[in-house]
Amino acid sequence: MAAQTKPVLHGYFRSSCSWRVRIAFALKGIEFDQVSVNLIKDGGEQLTEQYKTLNPMQQVPAVEIDGVTLSQSLAVIQYIDETRPGPRLLPADPKKRAQVRMISDLIASGIQPLQNLYVIQKIGSDKLQWAQHFIDRGFQALEPILKQTAGKYCVGDEISMADICLVPQVYNAAERFDVDVDQYPTIKRINQTLNEVEAFKVSHPSSQPDAP
Amino acid sequence: MAAQTKPVLHGYFRSSCSWRVRIAFALKGIEFDQVSVNLIKDGGEQLTEQYKTLNPMQQVPAVEIDGVTLSQSLAVIQYIDETRPGPRLLPADPKKRAQVRMISDLIASGIQPLQNLYVIQKIGSDKLQWAQHFIDRGFQALEPILKQTAGKYCVGDEISMADICLVPQVYNAAERFDVDVDQYPTIKRINQTLNEVEAFKVSHPSSQPDAP
Repeated sequence: MAAQTKPVLHGYFRSSCSWRVRIAFALKGIEFDQVSVNLIKDGGEQLTEQYKTLNPMQQVPAVEIDGVTLSQSLAVIQYIDETRPGPRLLPADPKKRAQVRMISDLIASGIQPLQNLYVIQKIGSDKLQWAQHFIDRGFQALEPILKQTAGKYCVGDEISMADICLVPQVYNAAERFDVDVDQYPTIKRINQTLNEVEAFKVSHPSSQPDAP
Repeated sequence: MAAQTKPVLHGYFRSSCSWRVRIAFALKGIEFDQVSVNLIKDGGEQLTEQYKTLNPMQQVPAVEIDGVTLSQSLAVIQYIDETRPGPRLLPADPKKRAQVRMISDLIASGIQPLQNLYVIQKIGSDKLQWAQHFIDRGFQALEPILKQTAGKYCVGDEISMADICLVPQVYNAAERFDVDVDQYPTIKRINQTLNEVEAFKVSHPSSQPDAP
């Protein structure tokens, strides 16, 4: 009865990819257990041999669910969506699904990896400028795309995986890397709307048990 | 009758993300037109205002299909899979689908963006070492994952989106960045098997009309 066991999220309160998975669980109303993997303490708990068996990439999140261990947040979110009832995280219409995935990947492949902790650590100097450059570059592309796809949320009027990716990325931009989000009115407006939604509130880093 | 118009792939022969889309079209037996976007000439044709309307990220590929323009290769591939007949690019089983997406995202978010042209251009010195570092880091994680998921191909014995991501990444590793792929026997073995498959052969950079 693996499906009746609560999923376990190995993550970190401030990791944007862990945050994405928390939002997906919350939107679906799925209870889960959290195990904190402190990315800073002792050089990073994600680097231990024990954690490496959960995710050989030595990144968070890793999710134990239905007898398998999955990493990569978008793979986890789509697995949840395909196996659990509750509100759809991807729309039924194939073109809208493609737009949701396009926006999600623009953030998950085009922005987030370039301002991730392990990349920033490799940059000698100008860490802040590096992160700002790639976030601004991504947001400059995302803004006109959202102008075409958005309704109340990123794609139309239903919350989707694209929104799940947007909120943590805007938080990183504004709170960690001092990017001026006022330059991107559509991004800013959707982010503000989403931050009022209960599933996003309970998933916020500041509400997690491992937040200082 | 938009679906009867041939899709148009705006890409570049050596771009690994364009290559992914070519493989997907070939596996599905879909005819398409190619428009070359030369990433090197005149500072890069992807930077023109004209191309920016197709993909505001100013990257290849962009695909015109069924009356919409899509970017982000994995979004395009999954759209093709969900709307076209032919061999499945993602398995029917949800856990296997999740593994295919996990492997695809490990490459598409965890490796490829960090050795992409526009990132390499930002690195002052040690461009080769930078790319090698992030490719080796990714392959060191991918190898044990594939040991668990692979049959003949990345996940079981059917070709999937994971294989579509693998081949261009191994090519980049071996041909462009001098990574020793012999260190990763499972990656090497699957890559060799895939390179014998007709859809992979016809999609190879050296077979494209814009190859020098």
